[in-house]
Amino acid sequence: MSKNAWVTLATNDSYSLGALVVAHSLKRVHTVHQLAVLITPGVSEAMRTKLRNVFNLVEEVNLLDSKDEANLALLKRPELGITFTKLHCWRLTQYEKCVFLDADTLVLRNSDELFEREELSAAPDIGWPDCFNSGVYVYRPSLETFASLLQFAVTNGSFDGGDQGLLNAYFSEWAHKDIQKHLPFVYNTSSVATYSYLPAFKQFGHNTKILHFIGVSKPWLQNFNSETRKVYVPSECYHLANFLQYWWDIFCEDVHSRLSPDMCGLAGALAQLHLGEAKSVEQEAYEEHMRRQCWETGNIDYMGRDSFDNIWRRIQQTLNAGSAGGASDAATTATTSTTSTVVTVAPARSTRSPRSRSSTPKRDARDRSPTPQPEDKVPVEKKEGN
Amino acid sequence: MSKNAWVTLATNDSYSLGALVVAHSLKRVHTVHQLAVLITPGVSEAMRTKLRNVFNLVEEVNLLDSKDEANLALLKRPELGITFTKLHCWRLTQYEKCVFLDADTLVLRNSDELFEREELSAAPDIGWPDCFNSGVYVYRPSLETFASLLQFAVTNGSFDGGDQGLLNAYFSEWAHKDIQKHLPFVYNTSSVATYSYLPAFKQFGHNTKILHFIGVSKPWLQNFNSETRKVYVPSECYHLANFLQYWWDIFCEDVHSRLSPDMCGLAGALAQLHLGEAKSVEQEAYEEHMRRQCWETGNIDYMGRDSFDNIWRRIQQTLNAGSAGGASDAATTATTSTTSTVVTVAPARSTRSPRSRSSTPKRDARDRSPTPQPEDKVPVEKKEGN
Repeated sequence: MSKNAWVTLATNDSYSLGALVVAHSLKRVHTVHQLAVLITPGVSEAMRTKLRNVFNLVEEVNLLDSKDEANLALLKRPELGITFTKLHCWRLTQYEKCVFLDADTLVLRNSDELFEREELSAAPDIGWPDCFNSGVYVYRPSLETFASLLQFAVTNGSFDGGDQGLLNAYFSEWAHKDIQKHLPFVYNTSSVATYSYLPAFKQFGHNTKILHFIGVSKPWLQNFNSETRKVYVPSECYHLANFLQYWWDIFCEDVHSRLSPDMCGLAGALAQLHLGEAKSVEQEAYEEHMRRQCWETGNIDYMGRDSFDNIWRRIQQTLNAGSAGGASDAATTATTSTTSTVVTVAPARSTRSPRSRSSTPKRDARDRSPTPQPEDKVPVEKKEGN
Repeated sequence: MSKNAWVTLATNDSYSLGALVVAHSLKRVHTVHQLAVLITPGVSEAMRTKLRNVFNLVEEVNLLDSKDEANLALLKRPELGITFTKLHCWRLTQYEKCVFLDADTLVLRNSDELFEREELSAAPDIGWPDCFNSGVYVYRPSLETFASLLQFAVTNGSFDGGDQGLLNAYFSEWAHKDIQKHLPFVYNTSSVATYSYLPAFKQFGHNTKILHFIGVSKPWLQNFNSETRKVYVPSECYHLANFLQYWWDIFCEDVHSRLSPDMCGLAGALAQLHLGEAKSVEQEAYEEHMRRQCWETGNIDYMGRDSFDNIWRRIQQTLNAGSAGGASDAATTATTSTTSTVVTVAPARSTRSPRSRSSTPKRDARDRSPTPQPEDKVPVEKKEGN
């Protein structure tokens, strides 16, 4: 068995959908290397079970429970929680070399040759190309490097508030020292490259090996027709249509049957789909609500009014009452009710990265950091009655 | 005297404003190298005189009049006219090494160390970072390379219809062979980097040595208060404010006094300004019209209805008639009148690059190719009576 591994990270059940698709995209291109996923407490027990079926290693990273140096570092710089989560990949010293893949990537062709590169190899970031994008990188697990990264983070922080800023500051020689550490862009082709320089995408895009769905183009946020198994592609994502459909093809063929309704957020909702059949009205309404949340910039009240139970109850009340407004109205109304139920409604958080917090819509659209928000401060319980 | 030169290109009087500011920005940082500018027939005689005062070399590139291999190549691929214009920089064999700078760049710090790099050195393009941006590049003049480039262009065309696509296809080893040929991004900092990855711009932007005003953020398209000498910075260009003001500072201190009213387009209009005094109403209206044209996507009728004389006449008619609508109405009305006067109204063409022709507004905003449209098919005459 290979001593190398592909490593990804899932902080909730929705990002776990991405992680599962990444894993299956790797299996489809017959990688010889192992698959590992880091998870945080935000991932449900049901999802963990499924992840274990697909990944060689499922490793929980629970900063708040740990009493080690990572925790001590975090106490000094609590705003770096997200950043620290990703750094834990350096602790996987059972592997000789790893390639980290964000859960919003999709492997289109066998890329095992990446393991021939040395730490830290990565592709340029489309927003400031003397920085690398931290969605795909080759690294060598090492407790020493991990400790050094932590110390660096505590001392210097992160210029973008996320892992990308930290890693670029730490591996600051990347830009100018060794061309071998510049991965070709086709190993981390940003989905926004389809419009940032369309002629180049048309010229080189067919060589893409790993696509990175950055910003708001996450595949699981697109509307999906369970009857035809086709994704609805927004006009502005036209050039991504094949990639988005491929993601949903893998979802339908390899992931969907492994889901269960006691998963959280969108994963639980999608588990209830019957592929080849039209969605129920409730299903349609619930999914629509989950997705719309992801596009909104306001704060979601995970603790109360936006809990799954409240949304579901309001949808059914509204449908039962025969409201003409239907699903859309119901979901909207639901956000104004309040209870104390504690539920994970994951996708809304998972799409808001540190960078997008203070950004304009224009910058949102180009936001590339896929690292989800930390789960640590949000109590997580399984939703009831599903 | 240095055997090296900074080289730029101006295809009309408006772009010549940019070329003059580039030249003075180089003089302000005490470059030891020579300054050369390639011009096309679109540059007026008055402007040529001024360019000769500032540049060591003013070289006309007139494809249509030439009977050489460039012309023969062009006849086979007439759509590559723009591309071919820029390639002529390889013919400046009186220099040992050159750095090409687009006329929409601005040198902020001495960058003479660029001449230590070899052909072809350039910085990554922000839209597809395995391509270099052709706004700044180090090259070695050579008739052999020129001929080879021409042959390549005729055989392969350009994947983006401009010089950048051609040069990237020709120097295709750039991305992966030699890190020394990757100029740091601070030698060609794209003006859109201010929003494409703002935290990186805040972290590294202060190191910028050469700024590149790509897309619609051209300094000469911004409104300028001649009384206070301050540029009005649109809110979306907030982070460019200092750079835009520096461009206008150079314009006021080093360029404006060299302009004359018999120059074409915006250059002729700006020549009539009295710095330190408020603009006349006619001046304001005319400048506004010139600038507004640059933002419109429709075709401009350079031959007739949009000619300087027609616009000017209509502005004065409208003002004389005491129209409440004033300048704006006048300029709009002018575009519907028709005569056969032939006049260069330059800025409108100069801001529309090959890439932007078929692009959406989103892509327009990120369009980086500064190469102006070819002048060849547009008869050029000095405007009369000004």
